[in-house]
Amino acid sequence: MGYVPYLRAIRERRPLVDCLTNNVTIQDVANIILACGASPVMATDLREMDDFVGMSQAVVINIGTMSEELEKSFEAALASAERQSKPVVLDPVGVGAAKYRTSMVLRFLEKYPVAVIRGNASELRAIAGEAGSTIGVDASVGDAVTAETLDARAEMAAGVARKYHCVVAMSGAWDVITDGTRHLVCKGGVPQMSQVTGTGCMLTGLTAAFIGANPDAILEATYAATELMCHCGEVAWQKTTDAHAGLSSFRNYLLDAISLA
Amino acid sequence: MGYVPYLRAIRERRPLVDCLTNNVTIQDVANIILACGASPVMATDLREMDDFVGMSQAVVINIGTMSEELEKSFEAALASAERQSKPVVLDPVGVGAAKYRTSMVLRFLEKYPVAVIRGNASELRAIAGEAGSTIGVDASVGDAVTAETLDARAEMAAGVARKYHCVVAMSGAWDVITDGTRHLVCKGGVPQMSQVTGTGCMLTGLTAAFIGANPDAILEATYAATELMCHCGEVAWQKTTDAHAGLSSFRNYLLDAISLA
Amino acid sequence: MGYVPYLRAIRERRPLVDCLTNNVTIQDVANIILACGASPVMATDLREMDDFVGMSQAVVINIGTMSEELEKSFEAALASAERQSKPVVLDPVGVGAAKYRTSMVLRFLEKYPVAVIRGNASELRAIAGEAGSTIGVDASVGDAVTAETLDARAEMAAGVARKYHCVVAMSGAWDVITDGTRHLVCKGGVPQMSQVTGTGCMLTGLTAAFIGANPDAILEATYAATELMCHCGEVAWQKTTDAHAGLSSFRNYLLDAISLA
Repeated sequence: MGYVPYLRAIRERRPLVDCLTNNVTIQDVANIILACGASPVMATDLREMDDFVGMSQAVVINIGTMSEELEKSFEAALASAERQSKPVVLDPVGVGAAKYRTSMVLRFLEKYPVAVIRGNASELRAIAGEAGSTIGVDASVGDAVTAETLDARAEMAAGVARKYHCVVAMSGAWDVITDGTRHLVCKGGVPQMSQVTGTGCMLTGLTAAFIGANPDAILEATYAATELMCHCGEVAWQKTTDAHAGLSSFRNYLLDAISLA
Repeated sequence: MGYVPYLRAIRERRPLVDCLTNNVTIQDVANIILACGASPVMATDLREMDDFVGMSQAVVINIGTMSEELEKSFEAALASAERQSKPVVLDPVGVGAAKYRTSMVLRFLEKYPVAVIRGNASELRAIAGEAGSTIGVDASVGDAVTAETLDARAEMAAGVARKYHCVVAMSGAWDVITDGTRHLVCKGGVPQMSQVTGTGCMLTGLTAAFIGANPDAILEATYAATELMCHCGEVAWQKTTDAHAGLSSFRNYLLDAISLA
Repeated sequence: MGYVPYLRAIRERRPLVDCLTNNVTIQDVANIILACGASPVMATDLREMDDFVGMSQAVVINIGTMSEELEKSFEAALASAERQSKPVVLDPVGVGAAKYRTSMVLRFLEKYPVAVIRGNASELRAIAGEAGSTIGVDASVGDAVTAETLDARAEMAAGVARKYHCVVAMSGAWDVITDGTRHLVCKGGVPQMSQVTGTGCMLTGLTAAFIGANPDAILEATYAATELMCHCGEVAWQKTTDAHAGLSSFRNYLLDAISLA
């Protein structure tokens, strides 16, 4: 598998990943970072932002659950990461669904550098400024990345990557990872990954661990994180069906598979 | 099982459930909503309340963990749900234990319509204004709903339903679901359900999914959610004992059973 | 096992443990408290602090995730616990890593009584005022408590216990529990316990349940909690390897083992 050397780098360098992430899936994000061999810290207090960003190798901004207070923390973390040259992985959860978070994310992207934007096709479309109809925090059915829509969706993602000078990782049945010039496509995973909460958030945390340990290869490291997640999703679903088990077991097997990879 | 057509409606209509819920069990609430076939969003920010309530088919207000900020969010969600005619499921966690939350819940109930109140007998008694001695967030032993106390407890719940023009779902060894006129009683589940945190919160989320997909049959849909939860609790505990496993496995098997139902 | 009578006391007395704890591992903390036979409540609202502290047998202050608002809650809980003579277990997560939390914890310790400080060696060293280089929220490699460093680390912990008139429980490959005069040492557990998030937080919650049910034997009850946790870690890791499973299964087996103990 292509992810192996990038994963090995995590286990050798044990990067610290500072996560400002939503409170729904925060424990799974911490656990996947530990499972891949990195170390998480989940601090949002303005008074210690510079300290934790400063000792980290990568920063996660996941806007899944928002508040005025958290928005200040996101902005402080983005500013601190810029000052201290730390790569940021932005997960624009629910962008396009609620107006406020769309405008907030666009403001962040205009103002601060990010290394990677990782989201689903509906979120990427909202960032690209295309019209759409996102409901909730899951990708709309009409936004599915399929063999037929792959080229158009990849070009949309590449446009976002060029506009914001970053890597874009667009999740779906096909995952597209692009820096605006090169596209890497990962066909894998299982649809059950969208039936447990947090697989997207976990992939964001995993991506931060990969780029934190492989800072000179952001595109390849982002692809490696996606490839590992898809592979582990397949392993976990196989184990789930073998055991005639359900979605909670699937979530456990998924985290198990990351730790055993 | 009577819940089957109501569950099928969830899987066909895939309602969005907007949850303002406590941060202890928030992930399990999101996961049970996904496991039954609905879609969760867990947003509390005032600035996007109308957007998320507006796109939802049901709203959960679970007051398990409170703050001044969250109280504003609860009230904004209740007001938004009233304006946009969305059914609310209220889980009055810990009412009767701390004075502040008792007065807050009574104020909410006087001011805003709710479709369903789902709580344990101690919480319902506090809302009914009866004297009692609730400790913490679990039902007091003296409030247990048993064969002997069933009639009196059901009448108490029915009184709350009539007063607030809503359905009341009172959990216990016997579950009583009433609209003040009709009582539906569900005898099922296992006592271990009160030995893992969040089974009550999960049932509240499940109830919202059921009424979101079956808005014209609130009483029946609420009963169906309870019946499914009790059934899955029994299945999960059987699996737990077969595996000589403990309470964490039980929680997993419970969520598994919902997804496999 | 020495923990048996102390655990039996929990199951007989069913103490209520009021937890102000971080939002990463809050559900596991609630679940371990239930699994050992106690009852958790996780309230941080200033307006109900006295009520919940007053009905509790022990209070947890875990500073893992901080904010200005939470800091006020911590302080209110410490003051309320002092007024109402409730024992506090303080988990100084990440102390020594970020300057702000170091000064906050030292201020708390100067101002309010605590019954137990439970942390890793890096956190204890920061409280002892020794120089060090803590990264994130995990113990630094250089702070490992090993056979060679045991005496020096135990003396450091004992110094903290004497200074703040409390029991100190220092976690590591060797756990040291000391009241400044007597040292109890527990050699057990498995290194995988530091590869899932929350085992420290869970031990803190467990410790509070043990001292809540055994208020006249704080040192012994704290040791019993550590001994039980180490034992269950070993049982769980054995089960994990037998099943060729990973870290998520390990976490489940750990909680299972507590409930089956």
